[in-house]
Amino acid sequence: MSGEYDCERVFRKVDRDKSRHVARVRRLLKQPSSSQEDIGIDECAELVGRLYREVGCEKVKVVGTKGNPIVYGECKGDSDRTLLAYFMYDTMPFNEPGWKHPAMGAKLVDMRLASGKVKAIVNRGADNTKGPLAAFLNAVDACNRANGRPPVNLILVAEGEEELGSPSLPAYVRKDRKRLSKADACYFPFFGQEQAGACSHFLGVKGVAYFEMNCSGKRWGRGPQEFAIHSSNKAWVDSPVWRLVDALGTMTTDCGNRILIDGFYDDIAPPSEEDMDLIRDLAGKVDAAGFKKTMRVKEFMLPEENREDLLKAYTYGTTLNIDGIWGGYTEKGSKTVLPHEATCKIDVRLVPNQKKRGVLPLVKKHLQRHGYGDISVKEVDTGYDWCRTSVEAPVVQAMLRTYRAYGHDPTIWPTSGGAVPFYVFNRILKLPFTMGGIGHSALPHSPNEYMVVEGNRKIASLTEAEKFMVSFLDEFAQQR
Amino acid sequence: MSGEYDCERVFRKVDRDKSRHVARVRRLLKQPSSSQEDIGIDECAELVGRLYREVGCEKVKVVGTKGNPIVYGECKGDSDRTLLAYFMYDTMPFNEPGWKHPAMGAKLVDMRLASGKVKAIVNRGADNTKGPLAAFLNAVDACNRANGRPPVNLILVAEGEEELGSPSLPAYVRKDRKRLSKADACYFPFFGQEQAGACSHFLGVKGVAYFEMNCSGKRWGRGPQEFAIHSSNKAWVDSPVWRLVDALGTMTTDCGNRILIDGFYDDIAPPSEEDMDLIRDLAGKVDAAGFKKTMRVKEFMLPEENREDLLKAYTYGTTLNIDGIWGGYTEKGSKTVLPHEATCKIDVRLVPNQKKRGVLPLVKKHLQRHGYGDISVKEVDTGYDWCRTSVEAPVVQAMLRTYRAYGHDPTIWPTSGGAVPFYVFNRILKLPFTMGGIGHSALPHSPNEYMVVEGNRKIASLTEAEKFMVSFLDEFAQQR
Repeated sequence: MSGEYDCERVFRKVDRDKSRHVARVRRLLKQPSSSQEDIGIDECAELVGRLYREVGCEKVKVVGTKGNPIVYGECKGDSDRTLLAYFMYDTMPFNEPGWKHPAMGAKLVDMRLASGKVKAIVNRGADNTKGPLAAFLNAVDACNRANGRPPVNLILVAEGEEELGSPSLPAYVRKDRKRLSKADACYFPFFGQEQAGACSHFLGVKGVAYFEMNCSGKRWGRGPQEFAIHSSNKAWVDSPVWRLVDALGTMTTDCGNRILIDGFYDDIAPPSEEDMDLIRDLAGKVDAAGFKKTMRVKEFMLPEENREDLLKAYTYGTTLNIDGIWGGYTEKGSKTVLPHEATCKIDVRLVPNQKKRGVLPLVKKHLQRHGYGDISVKEVDTGYDWCRTSVEAPVVQAMLRTYRAYGHDPTIWPTSGGAVPFYVFNRILKLPFTMGGIGHSALPHSPNEYMVVEGNRKIASLTEAEKFMVSFLDEFAQQR
Repeated sequence: MSGEYDCERVFRKVDRDKSRHVARVRRLLKQPSSSQEDIGIDECAELVGRLYREVGCEKVKVVGTKGNPIVYGECKGDSDRTLLAYFMYDTMPFNEPGWKHPAMGAKLVDMRLASGKVKAIVNRGADNTKGPLAAFLNAVDACNRANGRPPVNLILVAEGEEELGSPSLPAYVRKDRKRLSKADACYFPFFGQEQAGACSHFLGVKGVAYFEMNCSGKRWGRGPQEFAIHSSNKAWVDSPVWRLVDALGTMTTDCGNRILIDGFYDDIAPPSEEDMDLIRDLAGKVDAAGFKKTMRVKEFMLPEENREDLLKAYTYGTTLNIDGIWGGYTEKGSKTVLPHEATCKIDVRLVPNQKKRGVLPLVKKHLQRHGYGDISVKEVDTGYDWCRTSVEAPVVQAMLRTYRAYGHDPTIWPTSGGAVPFYVFNRILKLPFTMGGIGHSALPHSPNEYMVVEGNRKIASLTEAEKFMVSFLDEFAQQR
């Protein structure tokens, strides 16, 4: 069947249905779905189900979990290939200050980007990721209306807990493994262009483990037990804050860059030949100055001249990062207290073949061994394992061919530094995985989050982004 | 002239004028004087001046400084002895939650203490220290009304910046040194009884230096320079938070109990014979269990069995205490950031013969030497030097005799752990110094701060507290 799919008809439908497609995007965006605050979640799940049906999907079901519902659907395709599309319908909260337009108004506004003028919708979730979800459903709608079906069979899975660390997704996937495993690959749609128009393609993501270490006088049995006391008592009473500092000091050296926890590096695999090829290729292309400018960083950890080592550090480096630390009096002036506790938040980025579930035991064992067994180590959110798909995988090749067909030559990274729950599909279901798309959106987790609807010479419009998705499905149908 | 002063007449006047005295206390308390917020300061200074005149003082002057005014006054006495009474008329803010009665209402309420029922005035400053200031003025008023003058010449100095670290007081004292140095000793009135009725007497106070250490990517030239970036970048970007942890780790060992800064202990004098006698005496009397209970501490830093070492640690121990530490994300959940800076607040308690102005240079030199010269060390408030008066000083002996005359046998401490600006009088003007009184007040810096007006069998009433002050002046007139 491959090669016969009439994409051009679908593209014409995308163009004709433009205003309907924009309306669908706005409809989904305007439905609140803040999982951290539990605002609008059930309503949004129902809406996603209705949209599945509206664009021609079958077997639509809002599936209950221990947490927020998962919205399942299927769509018969024009080939024997099956793609599992993963979405999240939940968003971050949207009540922070700084919104220039209502966070739930889905207003279409003029905007000036590095690449020129565009028209964009401003709304929470426009970028992360109800915008791309709606765009993908628009693409499916156009396929169904133009040709009766999309190029491949589709399984749609939308979860509502991504911003909570996807706690219910692994159990759901394990339970429904048989049905979901029919897929040949998994796809996460997003708008992949930077402000200036360039695309990067990531073959995987790192894993992440996140925990809090708390040193309290109560558990220690020394120092103030219940509240901060007058600091004159430091002369004869111990300090839990100093104890946390001492304990942290045993965990790394070289300002955190070398981790001293026994076994921490043991599971890390050396870079594969494929990865080393990619790293060497990246070393010649990567805009290190651009990264530094975006992050407002003057110097990388390693000398920048050796690009290969730098990129190896980024892609193969595990980390023990202090996200936050606090204890005692932290406001203006000179309140004199001996605090009863201190806490820090730490995240660990995981690379192949580290195991998320291995991190906390190693940290606890280290503290125990160094005499800090009373310091608590508590997981915060569930974290994710890493995931990886070879650049040779058909689904990745289909994605890269689509990029090239649309005039893009993305830089290819073995992994992104970010953490998303793709391991659920990649490592539990053993599906090759890809993510990508064109179009532009930005400011996730920030005020004035937006997605471009009318692009410019460098940035694709929403209609182009939807056509890209159709072409990708078609490429995937053909690629084996 | 000594020995001729008729205290009994004054006492009768105190009793007769009781309601007028309580009214004066309430009047002073109800005038806001929050120095940190600059609320009511000038009005309170004017009121203190009016009260000076009202109780019979002369040469009253509200003296301008670089900061808040100092209120000066004199009162001719019945002997050739002169006492400088030091007061503070400013208070902490009073807008915190938790007040059961209006913080500026000076309401007289029934209260149950460990020692039984009392009537007390609830108001910000009742304990710290506009209550004792008004009580002392009441005592002077009664002396003047009953006998035409108090037992000794008085010089009154009230400052309005104590809660800011008394920044203007040293310059004022140096400028007015000639006039102030006429005093034979300095006295700070307060209500010295604990809830159960017992008194402690302190022969000095420790000094304090307070500073903030800030490690920022900007000054370091490494790590994020301007804002927290996504923590995935820890793999190739340095961490200012880990750097602060490392730097702190070089400054102490043993959970902060042993300071590793070169020269930190150099100026500390060994305990004098007098102090060792006091410490041995205290070792037999001190209620260590009571201290632990009040502070909710299970174990002291040192084994409690060796009371002498424990008390030597408290009285002769210098400290490097972390009052607070903060950096990055400190709220709920798992935000993943690589922070661009981290900060801690540290206070150092100073004992003879350490110098406050020596502390910051030692810390800076230490950081410099260990390669952390970019970490800033910034003084917060001005701090104080330590002060000490021998137990043999006539003004101390007068105070101890007064305690005994009122049925109290206070435990005598070489120093309190607290920090107050007494060094200004003790070390700049070289005046022997004492503080004390009976009566009870509590909850400084907290909601529901109070002072007892009607006492019980253990706690003196306001009238008794005022009589004590008269007796102390009389004892001081006689004691040489």
